[in-house]
Amino acid sequence: MYIPTISDMFEAHDRIRPFIHRTPVMTSGYINSLVGAELFFKCENLQKAGAFKARGASNAVFGLSDEQAARGVATHSSGNHGTCLSYAAGRRGIPCTVVMPRSAPQAKKDAVRGYGGTVVECEPSTSSREAVFAEVVAKSGAEFVHPYNDARVIAGQATCSRELLEQVDNLDAVIAPIGGGGMVSGACLTLSNLAPRIKVYAAEPEQADDAYRSFKAGHIIADDAPNTVADGLKVPLKELTWHFVKRNVSDIVTASEDEIIEAMKLIWKRAKLVMEPSSAVPLAAILKNKSIFAGKRVGIIITGGNVDLDTLPWQ
Amino acid sequence: MYIPTISDMFEAHDRIRPFIHRTPVMTSGYINSLVGAELFFKCENLQKAGAFKARGASNAVFGLSDEQAARGVATHSSGNHGTCLSYAAGRRGIPCTVVMPRSAPQAKKDAVRGYGGTVVECEPSTSSREAVFAEVVAKSGAEFVHPYNDARVIAGQATCSRELLEQVDNLDAVIAPIGGGGMVSGACLTLSNLAPRIKVYAAEPEQADDAYRSFKAGHIIADDAPNTVADGLKVPLKELTWHFVKRNVSDIVTASEDEIIEAMKLIWKRAKLVMEPSSAVPLAAILKNKSIFAGKRVGIIITGGNVDLDTLPWQ
Repeated sequence: MYIPTISDMFEAHDRIRPFIHRTPVMTSGYINSLVGAELFFKCENLQKAGAFKARGASNAVFGLSDEQAARGVATHSSGNHGTCLSYAAGRRGIPCTVVMPRSAPQAKKDAVRGYGGTVVECEPSTSSREAVFAEVVAKSGAEFVHPYNDARVIAGQATCSRELLEQVDNLDAVIAPIGGGGMVSGACLTLSNLAPRIKVYAAEPEQADDAYRSFKAGHIIADDAPNTVADGLKVPLKELTWHFVKRNVSDIVTASEDEIIEAMKLIWKRAKLVMEPSSAVPLAAILKNKSIFAGKRVGIIITGGNVDLDTLPWQ
Repeated sequence: MYIPTISDMFEAHDRIRPFIHRTPVMTSGYINSLVGAELFFKCENLQKAGAFKARGASNAVFGLSDEQAARGVATHSSGNHGTCLSYAAGRRGIPCTVVMPRSAPQAKKDAVRGYGGTVVECEPSTSSREAVFAEVVAKSGAEFVHPYNDARVIAGQATCSRELLEQVDNLDAVIAPIGGGGMVSGACLTLSNLAPRIKVYAAEPEQADDAYRSFKAGHIIADDAPNTVADGLKVPLKELTWHFVKRNVSDIVTASEDEIIEAMKLIWKRAKLVMEPSSAVPLAAILKNKSIFAGKRVGIIITGGNVDLDTLPWQ
C-alpha cells in the first residue's frame, strides 16, 4: 500500500491548478456568535463540478501517461466522485465510465453525462456493482480511480487544506465531514506536514457513525446499510484513509439528523451558501460540542453544493 | 431636489467602508455558455444584513450629526431597507423605528428587531402607513431615511458599482433589478462619471413593469397594486431615481414570473448562491434578450439574499 507524501500533494497542486478553482473562504459574524468561535468556511461547493472531489479526480486523470489515458478511466459512484471524474476526464478528452445503481438519482446520472462521461447501470447490490464494474474494466482496460482509497485522490484532496493555510492565518483546527475519509486524509497529509500545530477533526452523522466507532475501537468498523440525510457520508473507511485517520485525527464528533438539517439551514440562511447536507455535519457537530472549539479559529471544509433543490430536507 | 454627485459617492464609500463588506464577484462557466456572454455576479446577497441596502442606509446613518443621530432614524419598509437601516443604526448605537404593515412577514419584523430596531405596525394601506409614520416622526424627531428617493441612500448604493469597476476589467454593461430605482440610480451615478463607456440596464418583472412603461413614456407611471414573486420590486420610481433612470439607463428589459423563478433556480443550482427572487430578474431578462448581451462582459448586481427557505417559489 503506497502512502501519499507531502511532495505528492505539491505535485498534485501544480498538476491540477489549471483545472480547479482556488475556492474562496467565507465567514459569518452571526454564526461565529452562536458558536463562540471563529469559523472559516472553505467553499468547495464552489469548486469545479460542485465538489472538492474535482481535486482528487483531476490529479488521478492528469497524472496518467498518454497510453493509460487513452484507455480512459472508470469508477463506481452514485455521488460527486463520479461527476468529478467525468469532469476531469472531459477536460483531458478521454473516456470515463461510471457504474451506478439503476436506482441512483437521475440528476446524478445527468451530471456524469453532462461532462461527457458514460453511465453504466447495475443493480443496487455490491455483488452486481462489482460484477458490472469488472466487466467494464476488462473490456476497456480503463484505469480504476477509487473515490477515496487511492493515493492520487488523497494527494489531490490534500491541496484544499494547503489553500486554506494560505488563506487563513493562525488556524487552531480544521474540521471536515467524514465518509470514506478522502478529504479528512488529505487534511491530515497537508496539516501534519505543513502545520502540525493545527488539529484535524472529523464530523459524522450519528446515524452513519462507522468512522467514529472505528476511531474509538482502533480498527475499521463498517456500518450495515446506514441511513442519513448526509448521503455522501454512508461509505466506510478503507486501509489508506484509515492510515491517516488513526494517526492524525484528534477526534471525531457527531450530530443527529435534525441537528444536521438545522445547521444546513443556518448556513443557507446566514452565509447564503447552497451546500449539501454532508457539508453541514461539521457545523452541526461544532454547535453540539462548543467546548472543544470555544475561542478557536476553525477551518470548515464545505465539501460540496450538489443538492436537489426540489427535495430539500426541511420541506 | 438635491442630485447626488460623484464626490458624494466617494465620501459615502470612505464613510461606510468600516460597516459594509466589499462583496465578492462570482462567475459560472455554465451560465455563461447558456447566455453567450460573460456574466460577473456582484454578490450583495453576501452584504451586511443580506442586501445592498446596507450601503445606502449606512451612509445616511453615519452622515448624521451627533445631534441628529441622537434623535434616531425612521423609515417605512417591509423589505430590506428596514432591516438594513436597523443594522446601520445599531452599528452607530442610535434608535431606529421601522413602520410596516401588520401583514408583513414575521421574518422581516424579527430581522429589524434582531439588529435592535423598533417595529411599529400599521394597517396595510398607504393612508394608515403615512398617518402612523407621521406620528412616529412627530414624537421622536427621528430623521426619515427613504428607501431610495434620498440622495444619501443613492450615493451609498453607488459604492457597489465602484467596487465592481475595481473588481472586473473591461465591462461592457451593468444590469440591476429595478423597483424604486435606488441601486440602478447608484450605478448610473458611478458609471456615467467613472466609466461612461459602460451601459447601464435595468431589469423588471413583466407583472410590475412600471419603470419599463415610465421609461418608454418619458414620465413616471406607477403600477396599481402589482403582484410579482420579486416582491422587492413592487415600488414605483420617484423624482430622484427618475432623474438618473431617464438620463443614464440604456434600456429596461423584463421577464415573466416563470422566467424569474427558473433563473433563480439556475443561480442557486450552478452558482450555489442563495439569493432573492428580485436578484434573479436580470439573469431572466438576459436569457430572454440574449442578442443585446451576446459576447459582452456584463456585471449583474445580485441585490440580496434574504429569502424564506420554507416558502421557495418553485415549491
